[in-house]
Amino acid sequence: MDILKDMERAALLIDAALSEYLSESQEGLEIITESERYAVMSGGKRIRPYLTLAFCRLFGGNDSAAIPFACAVELIHSYSLVHDDLPCMDNDLMRRGKPSCHAAFGEANALLTGDSLLTRAFSLCADNSEVDAHTRLSCISCLSRAAGTFGMIGGQVLDLYGDTHEIDFETLLKIQRLKTGALIKAASALGCLAAGVKGNDSRFADAMAYSESIGLTFQIIDDLLDDEEGSENENKTTFLTFMDRRSAFEYAERLTNEAISIANRYEGGEMLASLAEFLLHRKK
Amino acid sequence: MDILKDMERAALLIDAALSEYLSESQEGLEIITESERYAVMSGGKRIRPYLTLAFCRLFGGNDSAAIPFACAVELIHSYSLVHDDLPCMDNDLMRRGKPSCHAAFGEANALLTGDSLLTRAFSLCADNSEVDAHTRLSCISCLSRAAGTFGMIGGQVLDLYGDTHEIDFETLLKIQRLKTGALIKAASALGCLAAGVKGNDSRFADAMAYSESIGLTFQIIDDLLDDEEGSENENKTTFLTFMDRRSAFEYAERLTNEAISIANRYEGGEMLASLAEFLLHRKK
Repeated sequence: MDILKDMERAALLIDAALSEYLSESQEGLEIITESERYAVMSGGKRIRPYLTLAFCRLFGGNDSAAIPFACAVELIHSYSLVHDDLPCMDNDLMRRGKPSCHAAFGEANALLTGDSLLTRAFSLCADNSEVDAHTRLSCISCLSRAAGTFGMIGGQVLDLYGDTHEIDFETLLKIQRLKTGALIKAASALGCLAAGVKGNDSRFADAMAYSESIGLTFQIIDDLLDDEEGSENENKTTFLTFMDRRSAFEYAERLTNEAISIANRYEGGEMLASLAEFLLHRKK
Repeated sequence: MDILKDMERAALLIDAALSEYLSESQEGLEIITESERYAVMSGGKRIRPYLTLAFCRLFGGNDSAAIPFACAVELIHSYSLVHDDLPCMDNDLMRRGKPSCHAAFGEANALLTGDSLLTRAFSLCADNSEVDAHTRLSCISCLSRAAGTFGMIGGQVLDLYGDTHEIDFETLLKIQRLKTGALIKAASALGCLAAGVKGNDSRFADAMAYSESIGLTFQIIDDLLDDEEGSENENKTTFLTFMDRRSAFEYAERLTNEAISIANRYEGGEMLASLAEFLLHRKK
């Protein structure tokens, strides 16, 4: 099976679970449950939850253990997009080809929608009865840290600063590690944990190194694609502030090769190797 | 000891723990860690965390077990105030006599500050090593539900609707139950859980009935105080839309008496009885 097919199949599983999870509503609360579904069920590629599933499978775990964690990661990713799009942040009226959440539901509802998705992520982990209690707690800790002040939110703070200030290469790397890298690593970490692989296991460390590499690759390719489209903000520091297109791609290639070599250490690691390759060559 | 002294002493414990918890920062992230401290360390009365401590004590638990949960509840309360004050919500420039978070730190930082406080609350619960793993998971589930779509956030959605629409008494009660009641009940629930009292225990049910009564009292008194100050929004539906001041106070008195009679069933329940009395007669 090729990677695209595997990702598509995984996305179907994830979407079914998310849809089920977001199906409940109550009288008077239709607008918020509708806007939550709107923000989440938007046909994303589900790369993060795929990582959760893929690492759980690689290390012999069951999909049923990984799916709630995978959904929690996707809820956090979705919330971050909703809040990122708000007028006080990136002020984006469009997201994935349709009106962003606040464009469709108003700013107050979008704010609350993001809050709600973030909040839900943690009960989804807490209620995952397929794994033991200590593992669930580790996942909640990991996710909270990855999403919080010293993870994704910290990355957004530094990124806001970078919009108006000159920053050096080290800071750019830090922004990417926090803003996108932390949640990508957490997605993989939750997959490991769902399979019973703990933080002190060398397999866990391999999953983190793999995820660090593909996370950074993801961002470099984003910068290259934005540059091609001419859609980048002129004042924004990107990898192309520090290197030409060719060097940036070669940098991403080196990172990808590291990720592939990690994946290939494991029987059944072909999908993760292909995923790294796919992210390097993606066109949007 | 009287209730004010006991609340003050508890607030010192809570504030010390919150301050310790919010003391870490990282280079470049000073603005967000500062704004988190600003939003949380603001000299609130700490009623919610007091409930967590008081119920834990009532049922024989240790303060050390309750404090992390109490702090988590207060972080969630603080986040909700930061987001509530944003321009797209209540657009409040002042909070507790000083500039609100977005007035002091800008809108984007305030948005991220709220997100961060909410996120932190869950790792604080997950990492509470003073209680067993299953109890921590119950607390996370309880807090996530109380704060989420069918709790506090749902209350805010209904409240936004009520700002511009006529609503009936039943809906007003539902708004109050969700918007302020759910987190007050969760605060008490976490205190019970910290003391080893589970959801199927009659003591837990008593704690919930007590909290329901004081939560509603709290809101009725708020409406009365706003009315005295003339600070209420003319179009806003409050308890005074449906009854005169005297009837509203009598309603609150009945609720308070219910709460007091529940507290008095327990040895050591005097503080909780006094708290109910205090909330009925508070002047701001």
